[in-house]
Amino acid sequence: MIDRLIKNIQDKKNPTVVGLDPTLEMIPNFIKEECFEKWGKTPEAVSNMFIRFNKSIIDFTYELIPAVKPQIAMYEKYGPCGISAYLKTIEYAKKHNLIVIGDVKRGDIASTAAAYAAHIEGIDIDGQFIDIWQEDAVTLNPYMGFDGIQPFIKACDEKDKGLFILVKTSNKSSVELQDLKIDGEPVYNFTAELVKKWGKDLIGEFGYSKIGAVVGATYKEQGDALRKKIPNTFFLVPGYGAQGATAKDLSGYFDKDGIGAIVNSSRGITMAYKAKNIDEKDFAQAAREAVIEMRNDLRGEIEL
Amino acid sequence: MIDRLIKNIQDKKNPTVVGLDPTLEMIPNFIKEECFEKWGKTPEAVSNMFIRFNKSIIDFTYELIPAVKPQIAMYEKYGPCGISAYLKTIEYAKKHNLIVIGDVKRGDIASTAAAYAAHIEGIDIDGQFIDIWQEDAVTLNPYMGFDGIQPFIKACDEKDKGLFILVKTSNKSSVELQDLKIDGEPVYNFTAELVKKWGKDLIGEFGYSKIGAVVGATYKEQGDALRKKIPNTFFLVPGYGAQGATAKDLSGYFDKDGIGAIVNSSRGITMAYKAKNIDEKDFAQAAREAVIEMRNDLRGEIEL
Repeated sequence: MIDRLIKNIQDKKNPTVVGLDPTLEMIPNFIKEECFEKWGKTPEAVSNMFIRFNKSIIDFTYELIPAVKPQIAMYEKYGPCGISAYLKTIEYAKKHNLIVIGDVKRGDIASTAAAYAAHIEGIDIDGQFIDIWQEDAVTLNPYMGFDGIQPFIKACDEKDKGLFILVKTSNKSSVELQDLKIDGEPVYNFTAELVKKWGKDLIGEFGYSKIGAVVGATYKEQGDALRKKIPNTFFLVPGYGAQGATAKDLSGYFDKDGIGAIVNSSRGITMAYKAKNIDEKDFAQAAREAVIEMRNDLRGEIEL
Repeated sequence: MIDRLIKNIQDKKNPTVVGLDPTLEMIPNFIKEECFEKWGKTPEAVSNMFIRFNKSIIDFTYELIPAVKPQIAMYEKYGPCGISAYLKTIEYAKKHNLIVIGDVKRGDIASTAAAYAAHIEGIDIDGQFIDIWQEDAVTLNPYMGFDGIQPFIKACDEKDKGLFILVKTSNKSSVELQDLKIDGEPVYNFTAELVKKWGKDLIGEFGYSKIGAVVGATYKEQGDALRKKIPNTFFLVPGYGAQGATAKDLSGYFDKDGIGAIVNSSRGITMAYKAKNIDEKDFAQAAREAVIEMRNDLRGEIEL
């Protein structure tokens, strides 16, 4: 998976992943009204508007980007109908040759993690195999340690899938636990070492492991230092755009060949039509233009 | 919620929560076969067998226990149908006056956490309110810090719900990050202090906050020390039974009035019929007997 992701990035010359994190506020009124009319003010209506919105965003951007990252919380909120929208979004993205990173941030003890691993390994119902979730990679939370990660690593190996494990997250309160100092070294450095160890046997042709790390764009110095500390770990980088980071902050997250990281933007792309006061009917075209802008911004700093 | 939970514990004289974590292996063959016959080897069949299994367990145990804790991973694995089974299980448990702790262990940045908070605050679709998830409390992961917890705390306050935040988990690798030492103090002590701080304004009539902690039964000394360190924080305690801990290990997790903790057992109860070689048709009766055994075991150590 990591090699496929890097090839996709090189083909599109764009280390961008579009976050598909729909909210009711994000959906243009004409779609909202049509869906409410058809299904009432129900989770089914929301599910349908999310699918329609995401499909348009994908239609207008898939040629330009290597990957999408749906945030499952936005869908899970609406129960089974929401999860259906998540699955249909993934299916549509994969039809368009996009790598799908499921932003699920799961983390639990071994027997439970084995159930969550269905996200990347599919399910077996009495001999009947179904790839129900279809993500190429998922994000995971490391607080519980290796036994909650192991079932996923097995799936990465056997099914060519990937992981991005939270190391240093982009949010303000990430300092509360992640930056506690142990003999001068922050907790996230220890997490980084664990991620390195967990991924050491799954390194692909570009020198990067299938077991990657989430490293926020909003902590530039820490990101630069982590790039040097764990050179075989690919970074999924949230925090660009809406959360405040720019391309300049990110040059140290990449290696000399311009690979090593993929930068996420969600609202910056999917809500570009609102930010720029563009007619809501043109929301997908506005997203396309925002993707091009972001790509050019990153290309200004990173040689690909 | 925390007061309702404690009252339920005192009424039933039983600080036990039954974990409803179904797997295909757990389901008696006669249920499995009926469901496969009706729905084929599909997620729908699995969903229906989980609902049927859980309902029977609830029917045979609800008079004896204060709460149930469905582990969402087991349901999520099977996609939207699985999530439906999770919701139907919760609905049924609540009809039987059980407190429902959704074991979801979510944790993310603020805007995403606000979406996950639907678990305890319901959803608002353009003015139409739906309490879609209905959990009374959920478990959360603290690795990202306060901004991922805050939306849930707001819901706890406004809707009388509760949280259990991972502090020291029951699994073997919990030591990898949670036990790193900062000037001699483990990371989980810092997490405990955060949980205490986050919950200080939500303390109920028994002296316990709506913001509780997950503290594993398998680390007795650490649990005893945490009880003293955060006396207003209620503990959700996994690790009894199948994971190896006994009632003797747990007396220090409770206060002098026998409250302060609720102990989970999942497989120890729901798979009792297998462990004891009881006819599979009597699986729910076997679960009832396992609940009585566990209650008596705990009562031997804890005055309620």
